[in-house]
This record gives sequence, C-alpha cells and structure tokens, in this order.
Amino acid sequence: MRNVTVYITLKSGVLDPQGKAIQESLNSLGYDEVQSARVGKTISLQIEDGPNLEKRITEMCEKLLANPVIEDYRFDVEEAVQS
Amino acid sequence: MRNVTVYITLKSGVLDPQGKAIQESLNSLGYDEVQSARVGKTISLQIEDGPNLEKRITEMCEKLLANPVIEDYRFDVEEAVQS
Repeated sequence: MRNVTVYITLKSGVLDPQGKAIQESLNSLGYDEVQSARVGKTISLQIEDGPNLEKRITEMCEKLLANPVIEDYRFDVEEAVQS
Repeated sequence: MRNVTVYITLKSGVLDPQGKAIQESLNSLGYDEVQSARVGKTISLQIEDGPNLEKRITEMCEKLLANPVIEDYRFDVEEAVQS
C-alpha cells in the first residue's frame, strides 16, 4: 500500500479571489505583514501497489483531480506504514 | 519576506464526502487500486519578516485559516527567494 499526496495549486497568472479574501481578512484582523495569500488543495490517496504506479497517478491527475488548464500539480509517493 | 505554506487536513474521525466522491469516481474510471481519498487544503502566504513570526502564524491558523474543532494544521516557513 502506498500513501500518495497530490498537491494542486492555481497557476501563477490565475486570479484567486478566495486567497484575496483570506489576505484581506488577515489584514483586517491586524496581521498587516501578510502580503498575499493563495489557496490550493491536497488530495491524500491510499493506493494498492502495482505496475506503472506513477504513470497511473499522473493520469488520475490529468483526468480527474486537477484542471491542467488553470492548475499545476505534483505528487509524493510514500510507503504506507503498517500499523 | 517569508513564504509560509499552511497545510490543513480534516481530523481522522471526520467524514469527508468530497474525498469519498473522488475515490468512487477514480474507481469508476478504472483505478480500482484507490482505496481511499481525503481532501485537504493549502494556503500559501507571503509574510514580511517580524518578531514572533511562528506565534503569529499559529494565531492566524487558530482564528481564521483552520477550524480547530474538525481540522488539523501544520505550516512550513521558508525564506523567500529574491528574483
């Protein structure tokens, strides 16, 4: 079993109104040192080991998890710890 | 300037219907090896250096960025690269 974490972020030119709202909220709470905020997401998957694991994860990202037009993604694969 | 990334995840006992939908969608696309999926978010902040930086970031997480009742958070602080 593998633990896979996919990190998805908006590409740098894409407007992020949610991040802008967070930045303005932090500023109005007195955290004036915050210059910008951008929001992304993570998807943690538990995947059974198999052939072509990384290729299949890339396919999942392209087909379903990320929107390659406006988002970048990267992923980490770790051996799952047996409890 | 510092680049701060806050990682927010649902606590382990909290239901994640969005993650469940992603898992079922991946299974129905033929990725039967996916056993579970859980969704989290990241918030990337650019923050001016100052005193008590880590304490202030912890306050931001507790007050605004995360919901400590149902979410866990952690953050990384990096020196921003000057371009």
